[in-house]
Amino acid sequence: MKKLNIIKIGGKVIDDENALMQFLHDFADISGPKILVHGGGKTASDFGARLGVLPKMIDGRRITDAQTLELVIMVYGGLVNKRLVSQLQSSKVNAIGLTGADGNVIHAVKRPVEKIDYGFAGDVTTQSVNAIQLAQFVEMGLTPVLCALTHDGKGSLLNTNADTIASVVAGALAPSYEVDLIYCFEHNGVLKDIESQSVIDTIDTAHYESLKRSGVISEGMIPKMDNAFDALKSGVKSVVIGNYSQVQILVEGGTSGTKIQL
Amino acid sequence: MKKLNIIKIGGKVIDDENALMQFLHDFADISGPKILVHGGGKTASDFGARLGVLPKMIDGRRITDAQTLELVIMVYGGLVNKRLVSQLQSSKVNAIGLTGADGNVIHAVKRPVEKIDYGFAGDVTTQSVNAIQLAQFVEMGLTPVLCALTHDGKGSLLNTNADTIASVVAGALAPSYEVDLIYCFEHNGVLKDIESQSVIDTIDTAHYESLKRSGVISEGMIPKMDNAFDALKSGVKSVVIGNYSQVQILVEGGTSGTKIQL
Repeated sequence: MKKLNIIKIGGKVIDDENALMQFLHDFADISGPKILVHGGGKTASDFGARLGVLPKMIDGRRITDAQTLELVIMVYGGLVNKRLVSQLQSSKVNAIGLTGADGNVIHAVKRPVEKIDYGFAGDVTTQSVNAIQLAQFVEMGLTPVLCALTHDGKGSLLNTNADTIASVVAGALAPSYEVDLIYCFEHNGVLKDIESQSVIDTIDTAHYESLKRSGVISEGMIPKMDNAFDALKSGVKSVVIGNYSQVQILVEGGTSGTKIQL
Repeated sequence: MKKLNIIKIGGKVIDDENALMQFLHDFADISGPKILVHGGGKTASDFGARLGVLPKMIDGRRITDAQTLELVIMVYGGLVNKRLVSQLQSSKVNAIGLTGADGNVIHAVKRPVEKIDYGFAGDVTTQSVNAIQLAQFVEMGLTPVLCALTHDGKGSLLNTNADTIASVVAGALAPSYEVDLIYCFEHNGVLKDIESQSVIDTIDTAHYESLKRSGVISEGMIPKMDNAFDALKSGVKSVVIGNYSQVQILVEGGTSGTKIQL
């Protein structure tokens, strides 16, 4: 099977102009079919503050109300996505920016209201992904650049976590490609502790449970790790979490980052 | 040759929720390959005002400075484009939103600085259009939804008039399709005078010159008419200017709107 690299970048690299340019340069150099998935970064909160659209939280959970949805459509789907696409085009990568609505590539279910109404938040599984359409784009030589927006098929876009999008897209394409999923962020991998910055080489299911119990992995890292394990369960060949400045080493399977294994 | 309808909608219909929904419903009913091109509407000025980005004019000409470019990327490429795409998806039109950078579909030249520096304004001809890529999307059953943004191939998006985009895309696709270009706006066609609202049925080159001399056609209508004639000169089969509420009649070549002829 043909190899496909799916690379997710988080907000920190998008906020740092120099780091982003270096990353995009490295990304452009990756040979073969590839997909980029991106989060939003500080740009959304900056424009939110200027527009008077402040983050809305209920019980510590982020809510996507109508105004926040407008904001993220403008920033994720517009400013950030198109900036990545136009930069990649200048490096001869034939990038195409997509929300889930474009070409109907990712359908989602608006999160049901239980204790909390999360607003315009979309839940996805590998079944939500139009793998045929995405594969068709890839086979045409295009590099899809996916932002953190899906759609409900009823006319509304929905806000969906970018790590989850990367995971379900990787899982949905696993029957057609040998998929390597690379989560890039500002650390060198999953850290034993922040002080020493020492990286855990490999984490399997049992190790993950013990790292959660001991508190080494907590809060924001838990959904990221869950997404990583979900991708492996869906047949993704490898998942690695590492530093965006080392994306080339991570893609080549070199000794960098944290490898996730079942 | 296969027929292809290229329909351009202006700002007024985008600003009117009911009119837009009716238009999109009618657009969805048009059979065969089609492309939608859209302008910005009041949304850009509304968000501009909220962000403190005011229209910048030099000698009565609109200038796209860096802040204005950010604004139009967010509004045209994000909010308006994705709203059209998600609404069309809900009507079973497999729409895909594109700036000129996406799939490298429209390349432009940043307007050279002569008397006025127009900033990030992009000039295009039929040569700027990647007709092969657009045709490939159309043949896949996708409906491209193009906003008024192009790119320079060097990493920057550029602001380009939506009427001109519709014209050059129509011209570039004319060798491959029997292209009908329909400019929709809030009037029933080119008007003899505003008071009577009476529509001129047909305008050819000689008639156009006399209408310009007599002042019946002036200001904003002149570039629109020039774009219409340019499309015909590039081999577009028919160009009509009419009311967005009559798009179905305009597409079928019924007696509505103003037909432009060489």
